[in-house]
Amino acid sequence: MAQANDLFEQLRAGDRSALARAITLSESTLPSDQTLARELAARCLPFTGAGLRIGITGIPGVGKSTLIDALGLELIHHGHKVAVLAVDPSSVRSGGSILGDKTRMERLAQHEHAFIRPTAAGGTLGGVARRTREAMLLCEAAGYDRIIVETVGVGQNELEVDRMTDLNLLLTIAGAGDELQGIKRGIMESADVAVVTKADGPGAASVQGARRDLRNAIALLPPRAGGRQPAVLLTDALTGRGIGELCAHINTLHRAMLEDGSLATKRQEQAIGWFEQAVREGLMALLANDTRVAAARKDIEDAVRQGLKPPFQAAQELLALFRTIS
Amino acid sequence: MAQANDLFEQLRAGDRSALARAITLSESTLPSDQTLARELAARCLPFTGAGLRIGITGIPGVGKSTLIDALGLELIHHGHKVAVLAVDPSSVRSGGSILGDKTRMERLAQHEHAFIRPTAAGGTLGGVARRTREAMLLCEAAGYDRIIVETVGVGQNELEVDRMTDLNLLLTIAGAGDELQGIKRGIMESADVAVVTKADGPGAASVQGARRDLRNAIALLPPRAGGRQPAVLLTDALTGRGIGELCAHINTLHRAMLEDGSLATKRQEQAIGWFEQAVREGLMALLANDTRVAAARKDIEDAVRQGLKPPFQAAQELLALFRTIS
Repeated sequence: MAQANDLFEQLRAGDRSALARAITLSESTLPSDQTLARELAARCLPFTGAGLRIGITGIPGVGKSTLIDALGLELIHHGHKVAVLAVDPSSVRSGGSILGDKTRMERLAQHEHAFIRPTAAGGTLGGVARRTREAMLLCEAAGYDRIIVETVGVGQNELEVDRMTDLNLLLTIAGAGDELQGIKRGIMESADVAVVTKADGPGAASVQGARRDLRNAIALLPPRAGGRQPAVLLTDALTGRGIGELCAHINTLHRAMLEDGSLATKRQEQAIGWFEQAVREGLMALLANDTRVAAARKDIEDAVRQGLKPPFQAAQELLALFRTIS
Repeated sequence: MAQANDLFEQLRAGDRSALARAITLSESTLPSDQTLARELAARCLPFTGAGLRIGITGIPGVGKSTLIDALGLELIHHGHKVAVLAVDPSSVRSGGSILGDKTRMERLAQHEHAFIRPTAAGGTLGGVARRTREAMLLCEAAGYDRIIVETVGVGQNELEVDRMTDLNLLLTIAGAGDELQGIKRGIMESADVAVVTKADGPGAASVQGARRDLRNAIALLPPRAGGRQPAVLLTDALTGRGIGELCAHINTLHRAMLEDGSLATKRQEQAIGWFEQAVREGLMALLANDTRVAAARKDIEDAVRQGLKPPFQAAQELLALFRTIS
């Protein structure tokens, strides 16, 4: 695997184009690319995990990109290297294009200590999440120690992101209505920090009310890792308000999670969760790739659809076929 | 399978104790019972599907049992036979006890055309849902043509119930706060009818406001099967207000779903969904029951937990083992 080795060396040396190529490789569906990607991932693994993985979510318009631009620069200012990955299963952007983000992360995109990359679109949410996780590990091996995973808040995404990040920021905007913003139990429960954005903007008058409402909502939720309750911070990425405090708060949380072991525990649970998901997906792939099962499946499904066969019995039939011929 | 045949004949003759025994059989984890239950289910299948499957959900205290008592009697009054099944994964009630429900469904429980049965507790939500679905089919084969599936509204349950019922009632109570009641997108989206309960009770003053709020929330959601938008009805099970209208509305919806084909389409999709779930669960069971895989699994999981093996690679290893020895 000389090719994987070359790419690994370049990536470890901090070559950004090698990192970009490695991520493209991990997104490829070609079997030869996948073999190479797996080899590369295995080489990279020992050099991952030292940094901090930060999830950032919120509805469109809440100011995710603008906040990431400001927060990223602040993190770089404190000596970190920042990678930004976007999870967006509905996106039609190609793997290489970052045009949409670049306009709103202009300063960060130009910084030599930053790397911005959307995840390739297409496939299931689980598939997008897996590719994002692999990209995250590649970025870490390439020397990035603050990985920001950006996602659009639509309900399911946050839970996937919570399964790959160390701590999550939920971005909200004052006066936009809780229901529209997804300020609901499921999403709130996966947040470690709630951030009210655009605090100096047109909605400035209702910012304190929004903060109070968030605090009240959070008080009803079970605490996060280590028994901590999420803080509610006010920011404005354009005026710079609260960005330094947010950065400091993130670092404080990071230290606390390292010290009380909750970071290690969370990552172990995440690794097992990903393993179990990979087992499930791999099993389904074994079944799907079985030509005789595939041939029989249509007739069996038709019988189920027409109510001629109970679904459970039909499944047993299909599995018996798989078991017999394997 | 003389035993399955006897039970089938008794059940078809409307013997309630035979129906109760058949459900107990379908809940059993004994392999011999499972074989018998599967045989019975296959015999029953041709006699199912003619009735209407109604899901009823809402938070504790919203008045589910009281409404079901009143609605059930109204349905019986119109010539139907009513079965009530409760889905409650967190319940510790045994399969046979209906004490908790009986006190609040007193009139229905005593009626000869009603059958009330909680689903046996324990196991995963998917497992509870499957047993409930099997019980539903047994009830239909026993001549019950209105099956009410009752569930506590906690977010995930409704989606499972939506996958087995024809139409769903979401019960809400005026003045209790939307957030607490789970009046959120996911749950709202699986409702065909929204019902404000206890409309003559202590919260009577805010009933019209609650109705308006629900209508506004519903207007933002995608329509249900057949392009219909959920109606919002007011009821009070104690005074009898709105029960007749609710019953009539349910029958109107039923007819419309029969006529435009959306009922048939929904059931076909449900059957395929259940088939796919049974395939997934069956595959996982094949893996779990493989002794050599089970023996290797602990070491592999430990390596994943300690970060020594990438989860994806570890999964491939486990599956290769399964594939080789099967």
